[in-house]
Amino acid sequence: MSDWMPEIEKIAAPDTSWRARARSRLREQTRPEGSLGLLEGFIERLVAIQKREKPDAARKRILIFAGDHGVVEEGVSLYPREVTRAMVMNFLNGGATINALARHLGAEVRVIDSGVDADFSSELPLVHAKAGRGTRNITRESAMTGAEFHRAFGAGWDQACRAADDGVRLLAVGEMGIGNTTAASAVIAALTDWPAEWVTGRGTGLDEAGMARKTETIRKALDLHKGHLEDPFSILTRLGGFEIAAMTGAILAAARNSVAVVVDGWICSAAALAAFKLNPLVRDYLFFAHQSEEKGHELLLESLEVKPILNLSLRLGEASGAALAMNILEAAMKVYCEVATFSEAGVAGRG
Amino acid sequence: MSDWMPEIEKIAAPDTSWRARARSRLREQTRPEGSLGLLEGFIERLVAIQKREKPDAARKRILIFAGDHGVVEEGVSLYPREVTRAMVMNFLNGGATINALARHLGAEVRVIDSGVDADFSSELPLVHAKAGRGTRNITRESAMTGAEFHRAFGAGWDQACRAADDGVRLLAVGEMGIGNTTAASAVIAALTDWPAEWVTGRGTGLDEAGMARKTETIRKALDLHKGHLEDPFSILTRLGGFEIAAMTGAILAAARNSVAVVVDGWICSAAALAAFKLNPLVRDYLFFAHQSEEKGHELLLESLEVKPILNLSLRLGEASGAALAMNILEAAMKVYCEVATFSEAGVAGRG
Repeated sequence: MSDWMPEIEKIAAPDTSWRARARSRLREQTRPEGSLGLLEGFIERLVAIQKREKPDAARKRILIFAGDHGVVEEGVSLYPREVTRAMVMNFLNGGATINALARHLGAEVRVIDSGVDADFSSELPLVHAKAGRGTRNITRESAMTGAEFHRAFGAGWDQACRAADDGVRLLAVGEMGIGNTTAASAVIAALTDWPAEWVTGRGTGLDEAGMARKTETIRKALDLHKGHLEDPFSILTRLGGFEIAAMTGAILAAARNSVAVVVDGWICSAAALAAFKLNPLVRDYLFFAHQSEEKGHELLLESLEVKPILNLSLRLGEASGAALAMNILEAAMKVYCEVATFSEAGVAGRG
Repeated sequence: MSDWMPEIEKIAAPDTSWRARARSRLREQTRPEGSLGLLEGFIERLVAIQKREKPDAARKRILIFAGDHGVVEEGVSLYPREVTRAMVMNFLNGGATINALARHLGAEVRVIDSGVDADFSSELPLVHAKAGRGTRNITRESAMTGAEFHRAFGAGWDQACRAADDGVRLLAVGEMGIGNTTAASAVIAALTDWPAEWVTGRGTGLDEAGMARKTETIRKALDLHKGHLEDPFSILTRLGGFEIAAMTGAILAAARNSVAVVVDGWICSAAALAAFKLNPLVRDYLFFAHQSEEKGHELLLESLEVKPILNLSLRLGEASGAALAMNILEAAMKVYCEVATFSEAGVAGRG
C-alpha cells in the first residue's frame, strides 16, 4: 500500500512568490485593505496554485464517486441500498440536484462507479472503476481488501490526473453511497482518536433511536479493528468506503498536479483528513465548501484549521455544497482579475 | 413624513398557498427531506413572493445608493470624503469589485446619487437623485431636513417600483459613502436602544483610537437628538444618510411590489431594520446576504431572527456580499425548477 507514498511525498507547497504577488495586487485594488475577508486568502491560494497572472475557473469539473456499504445491514440509514444505483442513474440523466447546480455553474459532471452493488451497462457515460460490489460490513470484517483499496484509490488518483491533463482549474469531489456517513464517521474517529459520539450525525435524517444504533455500530467497528488502524491506508481499507478511498486518491493527485480541489461535506472531509494525514501540504490545495449539518463537521474543520466557504446546514452530499462554493471562488477570481487599482481609477487611498 | 405610511401599510405577506406548494415540491424531489438546509426556506419564500410555477432570477438588478456624510469631520473614517465621488466614477467605469461580481452574476448595476458632495455631469449613466450635498454633522445638528429625507426616501422607493415594472425578480440594495458606517450605527442604536459600544465597528479598518473616537461620536449624536427619535422616519432624518433613507424606501417599495430584495451588509441592514420597524411584513421579502465583519451585525441579524446566506468576514459594502448571495439564490431556484421527483427518476424514498 505504501506504493503511493513516493508520489504523495512529491506534493509541493503552492508558490510563495505568486502568493505574495497576489497579496500585493489585492492591496492595490480599489477597496479597503482586507475588506473581502476570507475571499482574499482564497484568492491568494488560487493564484499560488495556478501560478498565472490571471487565474481562472474556465474549466471546472465535478467528480462524483459512488459506492455501496455493507454496514447498511446494521440499519444505519433511512434509505435502502438500491438508492445508490438509482441516484447514479439520476446523475447520468441530469435529474439530480448536482446536475442543476452544475448547469448553473457551467461545470462538467463525471460520475465514477467506485463500488456500487449493481451492474451498469458499459454504454452508460459512467467511469467504470468498480473496486467491488459494495464494501463488507465493518462491524464484522474489513471493509475491503488491500487490493480493492488499491484499485479504488488508484481510480480516484487517475481521475484527478486526467482533470489536470484536460486543463481543469477547479476540481470538486463529491459522493453518493447509502450508508456512507457511517463509514466516514468511523474513518474520522480512527484518524483523530475521537470517540464515536463526537462524530456520529443524523445522516439523511435519523431519529434518536437511529442515532443510538449508528453510534453503537461505529463503536463496534472501531473495537473490532483496534490494533490494525496504524495509518490512513489501513484505516481506509478496514473502515472506509470505495468512494472514500477514491476521493482520497483524487485529492492527493490533484495537489500533486497543482489543481485546486473543492471538498464537499462530511464524507469528503473524511477523505481530505486522510489525505492530510498522509501529507499535510495537501491542505493548501483544498477549499472546504461548507460546514455541513452533520455532527462533528465543525470540530473537524476547526481541527484542520480551515474555514468553510458556506454554512447553510446542507446535508445532501453529491458535491452540492462544492458546486455552490465553486461559484464563490470563481467570482473571487474574477474580482482579482478585473478590478481597477487605486491609481488606474484615480481613487485616493487611506487618509 | 407619514405620507408614506398608507403605501407601507399595504405590504402584504407572501402567498401562503404558493409557499405550501413549494414545500411539497421540495419534498418530492430526489433528495433526503430537508437536506438543502437553509436553501429550502429561501426557495419557499422566493416561490411565495414570485407566485410562479418556475421562479427565476432571469432579471437581476443591483442598486448602489451613494451619499456623503457630514460626520466625517469628526475623524471617523480612514478615507477622505472625496473617495465617495471617485468610487461612483469607478462604478460607472466598471472598475470596482461590484462590477466584476455583477458581470459574473449577469446582473444590471444602477448607481444612484442620493447625496454625494460633488457635481456629476448630467450625461453620466447615473441616476441623478441628489437630496443634498452630503448630510450635516449629526453630532451638531440633524443629518437632513424633513424635505430632504422625503426626496431621498422617495427616490429609493421609485427605483424599486421601476425595477418591478421592468420585470426584475431579484433586487439588491447596496451603498457607497465615506462615513456611513457611523451613520448606520447611530440609526441602529436609536432603532434598537442598544448602547453605542454594541454597534460601533471598525468600518474600513479603524484602530483602537479610531474606534474610541467613533464610539464617542455616535454617543454624542444619540445624546444630542435624544427625545426627537420617536419613529424610524425621524431617526433616519436626524441620524441617517441620504443613501440609508433611499435604501429604506427601496426595500419597502420592493416588498410593496412583491419583489425579493437581497440586503448587503451593515449599512443596508440599518435600512432593513428601519423598514422592518415600519412594517414587520417586509422581512418576508428580505434575504440577508451575509454577516459582515462589522461589530453588531451578528446581534442585529439575530434580533431580526434571520439567517445570513454567507459569512465570509466581508466588510466592503457596494452590494458585494449581495451579489455573491444572489448567485446562491439563483442556484437554489434552478434546483427547485429542474430537479426530478422520486417518481420521475424511479428512485425509492425512505425505507
